[in-house]
Amino acid sequence: MKPIAVMTTVANAEDARRIARALVERRLVACAQISKIESVYLWENKLQEEGEYRLMLKTVASRYSAVEEAIRELHPYTLPAIYALALERVHGPYADWVGEYSGG
Amino acid sequence: MKPIAVMTTVANAEDARRIARALVERRLVACAQISKIESVYLWENKLQEEGEYRLMLKTVASRYSAVEEAIRELHPYTLPAIYALALERVHGPYADWVGEYSGG
Amino acid sequence: MKPIAVMTTVANAEDARRIARALVERRLVACAQISKIESVYLWENKLQEEGEYRLMLKTVASRYSAVEEAIRELHPYTLPAIYALALERVHGPYADWVGEYSGG
Repeated sequence: MKPIAVMTTVANAEDARRIARALVERRLVACAQISKIESVYLWENKLQEEGEYRLMLKTVASRYSAVEEAIRELHPYTLPAIYALALERVHGPYADWVGEYSGG
Repeated sequence: MKPIAVMTTVANAEDARRIARALVERRLVACAQISKIESVYLWENKLQEEGEYRLMLKTVASRYSAVEEAIRELHPYTLPAIYALALERVHGPYADWVGEYSGG
Repeated sequence: MKPIAVMTTVANAEDARRIARALVERRLVACAQISKIESVYLWENKLQEEGEYRLMLKTVASRYSAVEEAIRELHPYTLPAIYALALERVHGPYADWVGEYSGG
């Protein structure tokens, strides 16, 4: 039971909260953390700059594919940013809690 | 001397600053970064949503256990989220600075 | 083609945006995300606390050295914090997009 942190980005706080709630209620992730960011990228060769919201979702490695699939279903973007950060060390009781609440 | 980023989450800015200062002053971590987040999780089967603060703490891998123990001592939660992100690459002089200021 | 997340920290929003735009326009990174943080660290044995901005930059592992060099050129600090987070899993089409826009 190996905890990971799945990340995704959405355009507004409403979408961030909607996705966070759905993933927590389905017990795909133990918790979701939302933070405000400002994004810079190219679109059709023009620089885009806009506010976005980042979700950090704690789950276990064995649930990654199910979480990715659920984010793709819930996410308004055609090509959402979805990836998982590797955790090198995790406090034991916290790892247990993540596993318990994410179906791990 | 391998730098890592230890993460934890607290309920308010005062606790975040108190823990950050204590860990830096004890030279357990070279620096602490605090950011505001919004957390979503289940508690007794009810969805909870509340503001929290995330700490990102730079130290070296050999100090992880000492940092975890200090966070548990300083943290008001019974079951704090504590984990370390793996760093794949680190700018050499910055890695040296992290090691020097975290007793690595 | 392995995506990574390169991180750095600057003193103000203007520097954060300037570095973000330059790296995206040079196609060294596919996107940049800026967030506000509060930093705590020691300087000449005195505790420093100040607002900063964190950049999270998506690129591919083979471009890490070029990105690090460009950040050092663009960054106002003599000793900038530059490091890359390891990504454990990445949504396939997003990994392709990162590779395409970062010259991977």
